[in-house]
Amino acid sequence: MLIVIQCKDQVGLVAAISRVVAEEGLNIVSLREHVDPAESRFFIRVEVDRDVPEELLEARLRPLLPPDAVVSVNPHTEKKIIVLVTKEYHCLSDILVRHHFKTLGASVQHVIGNYPILGDICRRFEVPFTHISHEGSEKELFEQKTLDVLLQHQPDHIVLAKFMRILSPAFVSAFPGRIINIHHSFLPAFVGANPYRQAFERGVKLIGATAHFVTDQLDEGPIIAQQIIPVTHSFTVADMIKAGKEIETAVLARALRLVFEDRVLMYKNKTVVFE
Amino acid sequence: MLIVIQCKDQVGLVAAISRVVAEEGLNIVSLREHVDPAESRFFIRVEVDRDVPEELLEARLRPLLPPDAVVSVNPHTEKKIIVLVTKEYHCLSDILVRHHFKTLGASVQHVIGNYPILGDICRRFEVPFTHISHEGSEKELFEQKTLDVLLQHQPDHIVLAKFMRILSPAFVSAFPGRIINIHHSFLPAFVGANPYRQAFERGVKLIGATAHFVTDQLDEGPIIAQQIIPVTHSFTVADMIKAGKEIETAVLARALRLVFEDRVLMYKNKTVVFE
Amino acid sequence: MLIVIQCKDQVGLVAAISRVVAEEGLNIVSLREHVDPAESRFFIRVEVDRDVPEELLEARLRPLLPPDAVVSVNPHTEKKIIVLVTKEYHCLSDILVRHHFKTLGASVQHVIGNYPILGDICRRFEVPFTHISHEGSEKELFEQKTLDVLLQHQPDHIVLAKFMRILSPAFVSAFPGRIINIHHSFLPAFVGANPYRQAFERGVKLIGATAHFVTDQLDEGPIIAQQIIPVTHSFTVADMIKAGKEIETAVLARALRLVFEDRVLMYKNKTVVFE
Amino acid sequence: MLIVIQCKDQVGLVAAISRVVAEEGLNIVSLREHVDPAESRFFIRVEVDRDVPEELLEARLRPLLPPDAVVSVNPHTEKKIIVLVTKEYHCLSDILVRHHFKTLGASVQHVIGNYPILGDICRRFEVPFTHISHEGSEKELFEQKTLDVLLQHQPDHIVLAKFMRILSPAFVSAFPGRIINIHHSFLPAFVGANPYRQAFERGVKLIGATAHFVTDQLDEGPIIAQQIIPVTHSFTVADMIKAGKEIETAVLARALRLVFEDRVLMYKNKTVVFE
Repeated sequence: MLIVIQCKDQVGLVAAISRVVAEEGLNIVSLREHVDPAESRFFIRVEVDRDVPEELLEARLRPLLPPDAVVSVNPHTEKKIIVLVTKEYHCLSDILVRHHFKTLGASVQHVIGNYPILGDICRRFEVPFTHISHEGSEKELFEQKTLDVLLQHQPDHIVLAKFMRILSPAFVSAFPGRIINIHHSFLPAFVGANPYRQAFERGVKLIGATAHFVTDQLDEGPIIAQQIIPVTHSFTVADMIKAGKEIETAVLARALRLVFEDRVLMYKNKTVVFE
Repeated sequence: MLIVIQCKDQVGLVAAISRVVAEEGLNIVSLREHVDPAESRFFIRVEVDRDVPEELLEARLRPLLPPDAVVSVNPHTEKKIIVLVTKEYHCLSDILVRHHFKTLGASVQHVIGNYPILGDICRRFEVPFTHISHEGSEKELFEQKTLDVLLQHQPDHIVLAKFMRILSPAFVSAFPGRIINIHHSFLPAFVGANPYRQAFERGVKLIGATAHFVTDQLDEGPIIAQQIIPVTHSFTVADMIKAGKEIETAVLARALRLVFEDRVLMYKNKTVVFE
Repeated sequence: MLIVIQCKDQVGLVAAISRVVAEEGLNIVSLREHVDPAESRFFIRVEVDRDVPEELLEARLRPLLPPDAVVSVNPHTEKKIIVLVTKEYHCLSDILVRHHFKTLGASVQHVIGNYPILGDICRRFEVPFTHISHEGSEKELFEQKTLDVLLQHQPDHIVLAKFMRILSPAFVSAFPGRIINIHHSFLPAFVGANPYRQAFERGVKLIGATAHFVTDQLDEGPIIAQQIIPVTHSFTVADMIKAGKEIETAVLARALRLVFEDRVLMYKNKTVVFE
Repeated sequence: MLIVIQCKDQVGLVAAISRVVAEEGLNIVSLREHVDPAESRFFIRVEVDRDVPEELLEARLRPLLPPDAVVSVNPHTEKKIIVLVTKEYHCLSDILVRHHFKTLGASVQHVIGNYPILGDICRRFEVPFTHISHEGSEKELFEQKTLDVLLQHQPDHIVLAKFMRILSPAFVSAFPGRIINIHHSFLPAFVGANPYRQAFERGVKLIGATAHFVTDQLDEGPIIAQQIIPVTHSFTVADMIKAGKEIETAVLARALRLVFEDRVLMYKNKTVVFE
């Protein structure tokens, strides 16, 4: 089973937590710990070799931890997700294939597209798809309809798999730390629209992609994973977009794996990733 | 020998150039060509297996090319460079070691430091070092003294090997396309001061370095080479600086090799790199 | 249009080829040339901006080239492929998704599996699937049935997308330079079976994947593309297999793109890749 | 201070160790733990924020651990090393520069070369150099003279920085787990002599380097670090050697940093690297 905790740092936290684990006769398979000295913040992720009742373990741990502790015992059951898309297929298809073969570490409950085009690929994998147009309707209405689907399914995470609309702060704040976006640049370079065009104009020799949690600041949320690929003078904008799709798919897949395995802890504007 | 040309694009350039080469009985060892369609600009780099008189070859090529052609026949004799430094040793030492063992592809004529501290390592390699302080004196005076050294040596290139002062537009424009800088971020992310501090605050998962030609726009010059390394939540700013030095050294070494082998052609704000 | 040639090297080949191109009024968009001095072998790939009749161009080029020249004018029509698989879905699914969205650069005519399990995913994409069991039957019979499908479709290439049987020399020699395999190690490390097990036992810090043309020597064919990912002491064999699937998929996708864009020229046991 | 332990695994080890640490009022800055389930082996590295007497801490820890425990409290004082070289300068120069600027994390006591050529660069950094020829003398005699220097200095580690002779099993076994070698391939590919020649013949698209502990099996010792760089068809053997030097230098530097910071634990033929 898995124990994930973050709280204010103090002396003796590892000793206290590991003593409880040992007294339950559990053997530690993997333990990752981090202290952020600037924030005086403690993070730990412990995998043990057997299961004991979750409530029991949590009840034993709580009194030993600071009152602000966020304790998560055995969260690593399969996650439920909703995916938001626009027109590009590459990230969504990758998610659907893994979902289909049960290697995603999460179950795709529903896909919402602001265009109808990706409904077909969803149907091929028997995943429900709803087209909610953003055209002609107020953004508020679009978000309300999306919320209706979300509230119906209560997903653990919302994945923006190349969803090209900006969500309102009100929407975002309803799902703190639960919306994951893939941005097609190595942030903070090239925030906003057309990052490949910006990269082309600047003549960079690397392009990248960034998976991050969404906050109400555009492209400013805590970064989960980033990667780059080299480009040369011979790349047109179209070549960069094409090459970029490969890395967008890979980075989002990696970020989702990390989140679904409860390896990502968020605090303020940063993540701790216990890989 | 080596032929490097850039000019306005037109039909038949490769045919014209390669016919001259063939008529001289030269065999092409390596040919790299690029056309920038947006700029209608032609770039070529041809290595052939023997030498013929340079003037002859250039005289035969010129009439076949547009009037704006920049023709460089056999530029690949050893370059001469001046290195500007501040206090950090890593890039300079790497350059000095390669210079000493004659694998730099260039000869270091002189090193100028705005602090005296790196004079010692230069003396160990018998490379002249001049300390020109920027303190207490006007930047203009500092640059004038530096110019005096430069004019005395007539270097092919000026290398800013972690030189932490900003050169004036007047100075920079005196050496167009000949000043090479190493910036400690993957530009255009984190321009300006303290990029590692900026990277730390943003919580990025990659840090990088960029070697570029210097123009009068700070950190905006044509990029020659870039590379990144992964970082994690456990990296302090000091850890990033330490890890960054490794990649700064590597990227600058790579950029210098490319420039010294005449593989980098500059046009407007971009480079063509025939690697 | 595209011109790809390989032949014995001699002086004037680039001049001769580019003269024909210029005389046809074609502008060269991209030209990549390589001479292998050890083999005295010439390779060239030229992209021009317009189409002219292929036979005409080939007829004009032939007399200027050595008799052994392999000339391919405008081969870059969409390729046709047959995919052979066993049980693993990751490479096949990636190919099917790209095929479905018409970004593969090839059309999947048929998939053959020596197990029936991957038939389902093929049906979802309306790609014909044939199960040809290797069990209980002689390998010869298995290969004969596979040949029947191949002869019926006349594919340009046969892709072994994690096909875990060894094909006979007779079969392989019927498709010289046309069978592409993905091997789950960075060859020549860990040839043969269970490379991840071998990698685990050796305690390597990198695992990789290799896409190569198949010859009658197991895992010895010309390499098209390779890539690696870092692993740590914490990786079990199962973790390596899981992480490896990501890179197998990526390397095969890259190799197929290169082959389908006619960027890969094969000579003896090596490839020239004009990327 | 730093605590590094490896021993047979059993329930409660983390609890026991962290309790001692907490009772001493020490705050854990960083804790990395690994259990090898196949070997039932426990590894831990704990950094705490203050120093207490080492003997005291070790005396308190010992009784809580299995009898086979290897306990190292505060080993992270500056290491002493002897470097063995042949003719190539790149790895040695990198080590000497870091030594000179006190960023190596170790002090170079002596350099031994089986050729005299690298004596000059050592003298420039005031590091003693001894030339011990292997020619005309028996290997046994060569090793005896080398041993004399080693016994005089009692180094923590012996670094083979492109030392191109094979040491005898007797010599190696005198320094178990203390000799570090850089091999110029991504092991286990291309063991033995001329790996770049082998890589060239095979037509690989990646070349690499491996830093490993030396055992009496040639190129078979526990791997500390590996890395690769891409190569293309245009690389000659000489080009590979040149490009390879860059990565050899980088990989050895990385491995030495890891070893000198006590981040590498060895068990049987593998390493645990707490980075």
